[in-house]
Parts: sequence; C-alpha cells; structure tokens
Amino acid sequence: MAKTQLGINVVDKGNHRHFMLKEIYEQPDALSHTVSHYVDLAKGKVKLPADLPFDFAKLNRLTISACGTAYYAGLVAKYWFEKYARLPVEVDVASEFRYREPPMDKDGLALFISQSGETADTLAALRYCKAQGQHIASIVNAQESTIARESDIVFPILCGPEISVASTKATTAQMSVLASLAIAAGRQRGTISEAEEFELVDMLAKLPGAITKALASEKKIDQISHELSKASDVLYLGRGSLFPIALEGALKLKEITYIHAEGYASGELKHGPIALIDETLPVVVVAPSDPLFDKTISNMHEVAARGGKIILITDEAGAKSAGDDVHEIIIVPNAHAFVMPIICAIPVQLLAYYTAVFMGTDVDQPRNLAKSVTVE
Amino acid sequence: MAKTQLGINVVDKGNHRHFMLKEIYEQPDALSHTVSHYVDLAKGKVKLPADLPFDFAKLNRLTISACGTAYYAGLVAKYWFEKYARLPVEVDVASEFRYREPPMDKDGLALFISQSGETADTLAALRYCKAQGQHIASIVNAQESTIARESDIVFPILCGPEISVASTKATTAQMSVLASLAIAAGRQRGTISEAEEFELVDMLAKLPGAITKALASEKKIDQISHELSKASDVLYLGRGSLFPIALEGALKLKEITYIHAEGYASGELKHGPIALIDETLPVVVVAPSDPLFDKTISNMHEVAARGGKIILITDEAGAKSAGDDVHEIIIVPNAHAFVMPIICAIPVQLLAYYTAVFMGTDVDQPRNLAKSVTVE
Repeated sequence: MAKTQLGINVVDKGNHRHFMLKEIYEQPDALSHTVSHYVDLAKGKVKLPADLPFDFAKLNRLTISACGTAYYAGLVAKYWFEKYARLPVEVDVASEFRYREPPMDKDGLALFISQSGETADTLAALRYCKAQGQHIASIVNAQESTIARESDIVFPILCGPEISVASTKATTAQMSVLASLAIAAGRQRGTISEAEEFELVDMLAKLPGAITKALASEKKIDQISHELSKASDVLYLGRGSLFPIALEGALKLKEITYIHAEGYASGELKHGPIALIDETLPVVVVAPSDPLFDKTISNMHEVAARGGKIILITDEAGAKSAGDDVHEIIIVPNAHAFVMPIICAIPVQLLAYYTAVFMGTDVDQPRNLAKSVTVE
Repeated sequence: MAKTQLGINVVDKGNHRHFMLKEIYEQPDALSHTVSHYVDLAKGKVKLPADLPFDFAKLNRLTISACGTAYYAGLVAKYWFEKYARLPVEVDVASEFRYREPPMDKDGLALFISQSGETADTLAALRYCKAQGQHIASIVNAQESTIARESDIVFPILCGPEISVASTKATTAQMSVLASLAIAAGRQRGTISEAEEFELVDMLAKLPGAITKALASEKKIDQISHELSKASDVLYLGRGSLFPIALEGALKLKEITYIHAEGYASGELKHGPIALIDETLPVVVVAPSDPLFDKTISNMHEVAARGGKIILITDEAGAKSAGDDVHEIIIVPNAHAFVMPIICAIPVQLLAYYTAVFMGTDVDQPRNLAKSVTVE
C-alpha cells in the first residue's frame, strides 16, 4: 500500500488524462518487456529459471488461486495449460479456496496471482497450500511483497507500477507470463514439439504489435461508449478462453462506470440470462472467428431477435460473417487463438474507460474500491 | 419436450395460482420421496444400487457437468464431496466443458445433472467423457431420456413432473441425491465413520420438516418482495456451499422478474462489485451462522456503509448477531451446515416467485425461456 501511495506522487500521467489510459497505452511496451524476460525471441524458446523447484512433467495438477481480475487471468490460463500441456488445472477465487480446505495431492504445484502481492485472501490460500505440501509459485508485480517472499519461486510481471485502481497492464502482463509458463509446461510434458514452441513463442513476440493495432480502435470505441453510457445493465458473452475476457470486460465496466455489467459463458445464455434481453440491454460479445463462431452467431441471433443491441468484438473474418444482427463491431487484429484473450482484453478496457470518461466518473479512483485488498 | 407439453395438460395446479408455487410447496413431499430412495432411514445408512459400476474409494477425481440451475447444484456438490469424501471435484458448465477438451485420467467418474435428461450441451459433454474412458453417471428426472439411456448408471431424482420453467423441486431433489452420494463416497473412502454417516443421514431424513418450516417465511417474503420489485438490479452474496445458492437465487430472480440479479462469492465483493453499491441496490446475503459468519458481518457492514439495503437469509443465531446493518431478515430453521444449501434454496425461490407475482410477469412461462434446452 505504502508503495502505491508513493507511486502516485512519483509517477505522472504524462500526456494522458488518466493513469488508466496511460497504463492501457503502456501495454505494448510493458508486454514487450515481460515477454522478452520469459522467452528467447531469437531461439524461439521459453526461458525459465534453471533452478525451477518443480518439474511440469511430474505434475498431475496445477491449482491456481487469485481474486478479482487476477482470477480471470487464471481462468484463461486453465484453457492454455489444459490445451497445450494437457495438465488439468483447478482455478478458484482465493476467498472460497482457502475456506473449503480442498484435498490436494502431495507435491502438486499451487500458483498464486496478485498484482500487489499483498492480497489477503490470496496470501491465506498460499499458506494453506504450503501446509498441504504444495510447491508454491507466484505471479506478482511487487517483488518485495509478502506473497513473493513466501513463494518457492516468483514470476515477476515486470510491467512497472500500476496506479489506476482498475487493472489493465498488470492483467495482460499476468496473462503473458501464464502463456509463457503454459508453453514451458507443454514442452516439459512432451505435448508440444519444438516447432510448435517456436510458433507459439513467435505469437508472443508479435503481441506488442498486435496490441498497438488493437489500440487503434480507440475512436470507434469512444463513439460506441456514448451509447453504452445510457445503459443501466450490460451483458458480456464469450466462449472458451474468451469467456474470462467477457468476465473481465464486465468487471472493468462495473468498477469504473457503476453500470451493472455481468459476464456469462455464451452457452449459458439460454439457461437464464436470455430472460433479461430487451431493447434496453446492450450485449458485448467477445468472439473472434474460430471453430465455435457459428454457435456464437446463433447466440447473437437470439439476442437480436429479442431487441438486444449487440456490440461484437471480433477479427476481420468474424466481422464479415457476423451478419445483420450486429449493432456495432470493434475489430481486433487477426491472430492465432492462443493470444486472442490478451488481444481482446484491450477493447474491453477501452470500452470501460471511454464510457467512464463520458459519464464523468472518477476513473482512476472509483468509489468504494481500493487498489489492493489487504484485509479479508 | 413432448413429455413436458403433455404434463401441462395432465398435471393441474390444484389450489395454487402457478405451477411454480405448487412445485415449491411440493418440496417437503418430493424430497421425502427422493431421500427415502437413497437412504435407509431406519438403519441410518445410504443405500446405493448393488451393481454400482465404479468404486468411490478408487477414484482420484469426480467431474461434474451441467447447465443453468443444475450446474449450481453441482457446485454445491463440490463442497460436499471435497469435505465429506475428500474427493477432488471439477465442476464446469457443459457448454464450456465440451469444447475445451479437458485432459482426463482413465477410469474417472463423470457425473451429469439434467432435469429433462435432454440438455444438448450436457449430452455432448457426456459423450466426450465416454470417449475418454470415464464411468458415466447421471442425475435426471426423466428416466427415459437420452442422457439416462447413455449413462452407465442413472440416479433418478423422482420428484414428479416439473412444469414451471424456473426449476425449484428438481433443483433441491438434485441436491438431495448429490448429498446422499457424497455420504456414500465418504463411507467408501473411509473419510467418515459409521456414526457420522448415521448423523448425516438423519439430517437428510429431517430435511422435509426443515423445508416445511422454511416455507413458513412466505408472508414475510411476500412483503419484502414488494420492495424488491422496485429494484432494477440486485446482488446476491454467499460463502462456501451457500455461494452457489446466491448464484441460484440471482438466476431465479433473473428468469421470472427480468430484474438483473447477479450472484457473487462474498469474498469477491471488494474486488469489483462493491463499486455498484448505493442506496438503490438491494443485496441479498445468504448466510446462516457458521464459523465464517463474522466475515459476512464485515461484508454486510461495507454494504450498509454505502447505503446498500441488505436482505439477510439466516438462522436464529445469525439474526441475533447480525446487528443494525440489516434492512430485512428472513429466518430459516436451525440446521447443520451440511443441509443448509438445500434449506436456503427455499427462501430464494419464494423471493423470486413473490417478486414476479407482484410485478405481474408470466411466472410459469417467462419470456425468452424454454423448459429444456435441447439445442446448443
């Protein structure tokens, strides 16, 4: 906490109106810094510390605990580790995990994600796992934090101080570290080849460029935000590794505009939330073109048929096949599904930011919220 | 679907204004029927089919897939299986599970929950698990359904036809079956003693009486619903095995009143949703007195300090220690934490029902929703 307070005085906003916008725009540089720490771009390989206190090949399970936005980064990681390393992953919010006293096999790996490294529930979850004989790894921004100190190994996100209460660059940096670890796990477990590692690393290397392109939608998003600001409720939908980005988008909008946004797995739409849909409810759909895009088109058709206004975040191919049901489209650069969650985080950040600015809320210090939650 | 349509003609509402209310009131009888099928009340033992095609003692993991309300029943079951049988459980919404192609150890147990037994995504998840060499078990109401037919073993919920689109008795019956299975798993795995089994079975035996008592809050809930009907948004909070009941309460309210309700783990409040709190936002807190009640009091204090109106669902001890922060209290009968999720499901059903009646929505056939989702 003390460090963040200091940060407010030391770090300035430069030419940006708010720290949040400054930090959104720092993402190409920040992720370039983060990624180059975890991958050898020349060799196309992930580089991890030589003294890694665990072996991915010997793990039966990875357990991830975190709170808020960091929890959503963990949810994305579950898709990555399961797909590329065939390693089963359990992710839970730390406040639930710590009290349910889950059974854990000895010598498992428990991973904790916290920007400040001081999140009280995450720290308590860490201590529970340590008592259960787990290897303890953490992904933090503050390397002198309690969570870092109590970990067997720390993976720093290296994105510099984050001042805005709503996290942006720390979240995408956390995801970048998790993506690197998932590749490393896949190699150690023999589920991806050297050639595949090369390709995946290349995608991470190209992330900063892709994010710069994604930021170019700023004007379009600013314009869409004027309409979004009139809504009292918004749904965010996504499938697979984009489902956590729907949750993240909803959280960002909640945090800084106080509009009640909720994220849902697209497939759950018909099991309840579709009852909310009418012409007053905008629905943000995070769906680049992929093998499930047809199902998303069908979901969007149901929303549109009930008057719901769809804001679609997709790539060029998705925009072409989306049809007439879509009210607004935000285009993200073409990229492989692997890096799409990180790229699609950008437009949901900008959408929340511009809506808050248009509404005149206190973007960097939203009501009721603290930057790090150091009490339970 | 055809069977449910037939049901509408054959089953009548009796003295009740809606099928939903009739089905809410059928719960003491329905659960009595369900429970007596799964436990021997005289001996105080769970009775399972002799030809069970799997052995809980040999399982490393239980995987549960379901959609909507049935998914929340699965989330409650995770707490039960982990606590009483020390069996790690993974629960996921079927539409996510089926597409992420999760790695699964051979000979695991995969469990599917579906009232109709025809839920398309749940069926697809079942087929994926079968191809992965899992034992397939299902909890269904319709025993001639596709999901039942494709299962190695079926655990029927035996609660009779459910006509109301918003599920009530099927959900609590699903939970009762899951509770019985968790006890059986605990015995087979040696994590609970014969004496503990006797006590837990006794709690299930007393469930119908407890539910009858919980239904007695009807008038108080009817009165609270008049105020709730004015809200455009509601938060539901809970911890541990009551967290899924917060999700369930929010879903029920969404489905039949079209008020945007959202369920949250209480510990996540400070990580975002607290920004929404002001004097226009009612917060329903599902929290019987338990070792975590102090933390819930602290959560409620934060809500009240920001003007949020708290509706607390708790037992007598909880009501006494709740303090001045609470706007309304709904009392549930005293009971052990084991059966509390089933008991607390009753007031959240009634709260949604009376709010919908007061608002004049079509309770049994809410807009946009179908009773069973047989397409993806």
